Amino acid sequence: MASVDVPVALLGYGTVGAAVNRLLTDSADDIERATGHRIRLVKALVRDPRKERDYPPPGGVLTTDFSEIANDPSIQVVAEVMGGVDPAGGYVLDLLRGGKHVVTANKQLVARRGAELFEAASEGGVQLRFEASVCAAIPVIKVLRESLVVSNVHRVLGIVNGTTNFVLTEMEAGKTYDEALAEAQRRGFAEADPSDDVNGADAAAKMAILATVAFNSRVGLEDVDYSGITAIDPLDIAAADQLDMVIRLVGAARLVDGQFDVRVQAALVDKQHPLAKVNGAFNAVMLQGDAIREITLEGPGAGGIETASAVIADMASVIGTMGTGFLQNDAAWRELPRLPSGDSTSPFYFRLSVEDRPGALARVADELAQREISIARLLQHQNGSGAALHVVTHEARVGALDDALVALGALPEVHAASRPMPVVSDRGVAELGWA
Amino acid sequence: MASVDVPVALLGYGTVGAAVNRLLTDSADDIERATGHRIRLVKALVRDPRKERDYPPPGGVLTTDFSEIANDPSIQVVAEVMGGVDPAGGYVLDLLRGGKHVVTANKQLVARRGAELFEAASEGGVQLRFEASVCAAIPVIKVLRESLVVSNVHRVLGIVNGTTNFVLTEMEAGKTYDEALAEAQRRGFAEADPSDDVNGADAAAKMAILATVAFNSRVGLEDVDYSGITAIDPLDIAAADQLDMVIRLVGAARLVDGQFDVRVQAALVDKQHPLAKVNGAFNAVMLQGDAIREITLEGPGAGGIETASAVIADMASVIGTMGTGFLQNDAAWRELPRLPSGDSTSPFYFRLSVEDRPGALARVADELAQREISIARLLQHQNGSGAALHVVTHEARVGALDDALVALGALPEVHAASRPMPVVSDRGVAELGWA
Repeated sequence: MASVDVPVALLGYGTVGAAVNRLLTDSADDIERATGHRIRLVKALVRDPRKERDYPPPGGVLTTDFSEIANDPSIQVVAEVMGGVDPAGGYVLDLLRGGKHVVTANKQLVARRGAELFEAASEGGVQLRFEASVCAAIPVIKVLRESLVVSNVHRVLGIVNGTTNFVLTEMEAGKTYDEALAEAQRRGFAEADPSDDVNGADAAAKMAILATVAFNSRVGLEDVDYSGITAIDPLDIAAADQLDMVIRLVGAARLVDGQFDVRVQAALVDKQHPLAKVNGAFNAVMLQGDAIREITLEGPGAGGIETASAVIADMASVIGTMGTGFLQNDAAWRELPRLPSGDSTSPFYFRLSVEDRPGALARVADELAQREISIARLLQHQNGSGAALHVVTHEARVGALDDALVALGALPEVHAASRPMPVVSDRGVAELGWA
Repeated sequence: MASVDVPVALLGYGTVGAAVNRLLTDSADDIERATGHRIRLVKALVRDPRKERDYPPPGGVLTTDFSEIANDPSIQVVAEVMGGVDPAGGYVLDLLRGGKHVVTANKQLVARRGAELFEAASEGGVQLRFEASVCAAIPVIKVLRESLVVSNVHRVLGIVNGTTNFVLTEMEAGKTYDEALAEAQRRGFAEADPSDDVNGADAAAKMAILATVAFNSRVGLEDVDYSGITAIDPLDIAAADQLDMVIRLVGAARLVDGQFDVRVQAALVDKQHPLAKVNGAFNAVMLQGDAIREITLEGPGAGGIETASAVIADMASVIGTMGTGFLQNDAAWRELPRLPSGDSTSPFYFRLSVEDRPGALARVADELAQREISIARLLQHQNGSGAALHVVTHEARVGALDDALVALGALPEVHAASRPMPVVSDRGVAELGWA
């Protein structure tokens, strides 16, 4: 096949941008053989062209003028790797409306303004691809949009933040939260300011995007209930271990009777569950659907070169398919309602400090039973003058559980109740035969 | 976007064919929303149209006449789900040469005649897709061809046969090989005649296809060294357990100095390694490359509906991209040489029955050292009147190890030597930081 020269532009030229240029240059022959196209970087929008950079592009590529990209008809594909919601969002919208295909690595942008961007792409007859915005090089977006088109994915479970997974793994080995976080920073797995990682916001943005693509519905960051790991202490880790579980920051997106439910929170995960085995700072996403049962993708969820690899794969896919209408339907073509938060169900773990006297357990069990919460596992041990009660429930409504914990807290026998955590213990898999 | 009606045909209408028709019918709206196309089954080639079938197609669809498909210009996409190398191969070649896109679920066909088929597709300007031929719905072919275009994948490790993985898992729990296989058959994880599964041929075909796509080189079934699990006995399982390992049938494809090395054999896998944790009859494929470090895909590797899901995803991708040249370059555009079998390297495990007398171990160590094989771990225990010696080597050449075992077998101190098995214990991952 004859090779076609394809000029592309970047918005931003930081770590990811420089890695994109380096990979495009080093792998130009591979890309050409695989796609029949030679991708050439012709413009990159930056604030300060004179700043010293890794792998600087050839002269004339860096520009401070967005219109040099927006108004150049020879540029049909632009990759946004600048990050942030503003001004990146405005630029991307302009480009899509102007008929250019856009690839973005920006999870905050897609999670906050995805609906608007998808609509602009669909109306403009161009593609918006965003593989790099979720878990870097793990190709979960392509798999959801292109491979699982008839699988009716109804549940996505993920460990989508490497920083917190590393911190929790280190805490299991005996470190305190502060020690584990410092180790993550030392090894480059956490930023100097790790707030968005440890408070769950980063994972929430990724889960919003995954839910949007899995359920074909607009799910924004504001639709995700999230919390982080800052309140997890060694007592939680030890309690989980006693139950043969570990604590992980788990993202869960479910489709329940036509309503979506997306949340990110610290959860107890059975040690035999695949998500418990995700290594250190790696990420994993488990997709459950009717026709596929369960497919899990695991790999490094961050990194400059990994992100650049995903950006270039998206560019190659866009270039290979532009003009066909492929993937130009709105990724979020329906608006499903959100499941009321209290109606979300899960097995839960919590612990109580109770007085060690006859009848205390009966009162606790009674309060739970009144709200149709049944106990799956119970561990009791002496704790000073009282007793610590570790409770794992069967599937329960969040609303019922919250009510029960308020009622339990008011009992004279109960001194303190921990925050509840969901429990991930089912494999979610029916072992079907296939002969 | 306006919807376009796309007539398609099937070669074969067995379990997979019926599942394709059922999914196409049940998910017609989903497919249309996702792709803008309405896929409609118009012909299916069968031997006996009067045979009773699950989910029979509408009247007039079944035909015994291949030319009704080959000569119908309205049919641009055909899925081959009949299996077998003949006559399927001839049909597929005819269709590709006649300008029709082909999707196939046939691993034996792609592994044995892939080179010829790729060339015909490339020359005919049509696509040949074969996701369903490897691990059913696990989208490893699409990921390799479209997502990892710049990642320079140099190693593929996989558990690509669910039957053997289930059997080995059951043997760990105490069953004999025969009991485990019977249990697999009872649960539908093994065919009545499981020969191709347990002797490694099924896994070898999948690894040939994966190596072809990962390395862009023609790797046929005849290029794969393979053996199965029929010789594994409880003693092997117990020995592995003592070393904190399990035995798994592992496929390994590597690119070494521009030469490929593809093999399938029973291996000792460290219990901490992701491949040791693959559940029962599930499959997993681990891809290692420069830009991605390591991405693992796991899921059900067989099943009628899972295979049909992959066939339809391929159809949707073909239909969405036809006419663009996308993925029409020959998937195997180069012919790399095969690494001479003796030059393949790995850490290995073997065990010896030795006389329990001074100097025996020294003689063994000396024979290994003469061939530059160094010992990584050694376990010795009493075994009747003699001693059993469990040896794990560092990375060693297969040729050197084979020589060493012949020499060891000739020592008067050595009564018997086991077949060596490779050891999979490294994660293959450098933990890179990313801050």
